[in-house]
Amino acid sequence: MLSRDEMALRPLNFVVVLGGDGTLLSAARSMAKVGIPVLGVNLGSLGFLTEVPLEELYATLQGIEEGRSNVEARSMVHCDVLRKGTTVASYDALNDIVVGKGTVSRLNHCDVYIDGDFVSAYKADSLIVSTPTGSTAYSLAAGGPILMPSVNALVVTPVAAHSLTHRPLVVPDTSKIEIVVNTGPDEAYLSVDGQDGMPMYDGDRVACHKSEHHVKLLRIQGTFFDVLRAKLKWGQR
Amino acid sequence: MLSRDEMALRPLNFVVVLGGDGTLLSAARSMAKVGIPVLGVNLGSLGFLTEVPLEELYATLQGIEEGRSNVEARSMVHCDVLRKGTTVASYDALNDIVVGKGTVSRLNHCDVYIDGDFVSAYKADSLIVSTPTGSTAYSLAAGGPILMPSVNALVVTPVAAHSLTHRPLVVPDTSKIEIVVNTGPDEAYLSVDGQDGMPMYDGDRVACHKSEHHVKLLRIQGTFFDVLRAKLKWGQR
Amino acid sequence: MLSRDEMALRPLNFVVVLGGDGTLLSAARSMAKVGIPVLGVNLGSLGFLTEVPLEELYATLQGIEEGRSNVEARSMVHCDVLRKGTTVASYDALNDIVVGKGTVSRLNHCDVYIDGDFVSAYKADSLIVSTPTGSTAYSLAAGGPILMPSVNALVVTPVAAHSLTHRPLVVPDTSKIEIVVNTGPDEAYLSVDGQDGMPMYDGDRVACHKSEHHVKLLRIQGTFFDVLRAKLKWGQR
Amino acid sequence: MLSRDEMALRPLNFVVVLGGDGTLLSAARSMAKVGIPVLGVNLGSLGFLTEVPLEELYATLQGIEEGRSNVEARSMVHCDVLRKGTTVASYDALNDIVVGKGTVSRLNHCDVYIDGDFVSAYKADSLIVSTPTGSTAYSLAAGGPILMPSVNALVVTPVAAHSLTHRPLVVPDTSKIEIVVNTGPDEAYLSVDGQDGMPMYDGDRVACHKSEHHVKLLRIQGTFFDVLRAKLKWGQR
Repeated sequence: MLSRDEMALRPLNFVVVLGGDGTLLSAARSMAKVGIPVLGVNLGSLGFLTEVPLEELYATLQGIEEGRSNVEARSMVHCDVLRKGTTVASYDALNDIVVGKGTVSRLNHCDVYIDGDFVSAYKADSLIVSTPTGSTAYSLAAGGPILMPSVNALVVTPVAAHSLTHRPLVVPDTSKIEIVVNTGPDEAYLSVDGQDGMPMYDGDRVACHKSEHHVKLLRIQGTFFDVLRAKLKWGQR
Repeated sequence: MLSRDEMALRPLNFVVVLGGDGTLLSAARSMAKVGIPVLGVNLGSLGFLTEVPLEELYATLQGIEEGRSNVEARSMVHCDVLRKGTTVASYDALNDIVVGKGTVSRLNHCDVYIDGDFVSAYKADSLIVSTPTGSTAYSLAAGGPILMPSVNALVVTPVAAHSLTHRPLVVPDTSKIEIVVNTGPDEAYLSVDGQDGMPMYDGDRVACHKSEHHVKLLRIQGTFFDVLRAKLKWGQR
Repeated sequence: MLSRDEMALRPLNFVVVLGGDGTLLSAARSMAKVGIPVLGVNLGSLGFLTEVPLEELYATLQGIEEGRSNVEARSMVHCDVLRKGTTVASYDALNDIVVGKGTVSRLNHCDVYIDGDFVSAYKADSLIVSTPTGSTAYSLAAGGPILMPSVNALVVTPVAAHSLTHRPLVVPDTSKIEIVVNTGPDEAYLSVDGQDGMPMYDGDRVACHKSEHHVKLLRIQGTFFDVLRAKLKWGQR
Repeated sequence: MLSRDEMALRPLNFVVVLGGDGTLLSAARSMAKVGIPVLGVNLGSLGFLTEVPLEELYATLQGIEEGRSNVEARSMVHCDVLRKGTTVASYDALNDIVVGKGTVSRLNHCDVYIDGDFVSAYKADSLIVSTPTGSTAYSLAAGGPILMPSVNALVVTPVAAHSLTHRPLVVPDTSKIEIVVNTGPDEAYLSVDGQDGMPMYDGDRVACHKSEHHVKLLRIQGTFFDVLRAKLKWGQR
């Protein structure tokens, strides 16, 4: 590892995030804008994004210093919130953008368009627009598929859709996904990585597409499948 | 059909509810307490509880007058909300009791006990305790099974459970189901048939069991499966 | 534990089955007919039916001898196979009766009736009629709910149903479930606990109902939920 | 439309397939090798691949003649079957390659590798490798997501996986997916679009990747979502 003096002479190479996936999500959104890689170190149990356990921190840093790491660029999803024709907010998410119902109302009504083509009206608790990285988070809990990080796609997953034939929809990440909120007098809520967000009102539009930013994850070993097997208790050979 | 004079001379035999399933749910909860049967007439599309279309209303009333109807008793679920050892509210539901997350927080943490035995800690958007009647409503959207109305059971269905191995759990309707809310500083929300409810706080307990009341549905023809096939577009012979 | 001499003087009290759930299923079907309880001891990993690990065998037998065990009666499902009006075979299953497609053909077509009422035509890989005990076996893998062993019900679960609105159906265990196989020239296959069975042909009928026999499981400790939490890695308090 | 004389003077422009999706699948695999577009005309109900109803056939042909059609290239999946190191068969599928269990055995055991990395051991009825086109067929019935035809991906979907945490896996269509069959003495079965195939034995390997061929679908109107809404009864605006 570098001494404090050596660090001071260098520009910031990467950021070590100690915590769980939640902590990393928050740091990753900030670092994505300035292009600095992050290394996720879990303080508790293994996370999808925080693979390095605390006791391997120094060995990992040593490995990075020795050039045995690689940077994995994870795509993000961007959204603009349009109210009466004006963009009132914009967000980038590493995992997902979620348009959900308010507390009391059971169903969230919205219309979805992809590249201008009408897809369907949805009645559901929420509608998730997830990146491949987010496909192992909330979207998975809602019945979505797992996307390898290298798949150039986004997935639109409804939560508890009223119609049993609504299923997760995988779209090219060159698509524009537009969600029009039809809640009448009820409030809906926009969530960004489950951490940030804002209330939504009838007629609001959420325009989603692949972000121009990426999160750079620093990784030293192991495959995406090693993490899946460990987290999901998949079968070993 | 009866003339107004004939009606005036009789005690109330039954109530006609015109609307959708939502309207009927609300009326049914009221009528259950006084034991008066309800006839559900849909003003729009076929409902699970409102099978009679408006154009068949008079023929149906005629049939009832001629004694060709029968009363189907549908079980309800009762819950008591306990806060610091005191019962602060009680509800009866025809469809379901739902303990859900507040607006912003993604996950609702709770512990479930059945007849005093610990079942599991759940992290999920919501936990649904559904009657057989409610099994075709919100629980179905969340991945639950369909229970015939005559099954003596309740079903506990998580919505978007964090753990992929949590599945709907069917329990005898002689069981006591207790949900302990562990939300920390966050608020949760208790919903009754998606229509009534109250905020919940950390440590609150929801004790559910079969209600002493029943909803008496007046029915004149057709089976439960006729409705399922029509509503869910199941295959004909 | 008893000496061989003591054993010789007594009628057979119970049978110890060493193996996995598969071994126990087979032994349990045999023992059910003569009413002898079985104790399942797993030689490898914990099973739903074989809860006792080998290293606890002697302590468990000691506990049984000291009267600390109880017998849990698990319901079975019986089926008669009717071909051209004649019963050509009959089976009792502890887990499930499965009507499945042959090897090559993708879809199994069948009609289902409950207590004489038409339910639906199904196109699916298989149709499972499961007991509560079987609800944690094949039916669970196919998307079925978990039924507590004390629920008086059977569950009909399709595997990979062509129609997305077909869902597991929970019926009272006093029901008669009839499956009519419509395979045309293709062969179907009837499976009993995944271990026994026979080929089925177009027009064959499988009439299922609760068996008159029970499997008596000898258990010394723990709840159904303890096993679920251990097997399915559910959350601890 | 062209007269027979005009036709005779031209090379074959396209093939009209009259039937259901099954008929089209078979014709499409043949035509893919020679690069001739196909027009699917359904003789019964609307198919995902046979959008044109019989009564619109002549209007559609007129539209094609007038240049109002476009050709949509649908990707296919290729597989080689390796037995003891030798390729014993090769197939191209428009929908899916399925490695399934034999008739009697309940579970198919196999190991999956992607680009040489071990993914997981699977115990399941079948393992489906589906194209985007096939994502609305068998994979959908087994719980898979819907992929827009323009997504550059394949999806690996298990049917009735023993482990509840196995979920459909979406991989880039530049990946090599290898399935190693571990059935011991039991037979497995390889299925191609549910129409062609061969028995598989312990140790056989199925190496799948995107095919060099495409199916050229002739389409004159409507979007992919129009078909989804019609087939799956999704909500209208």
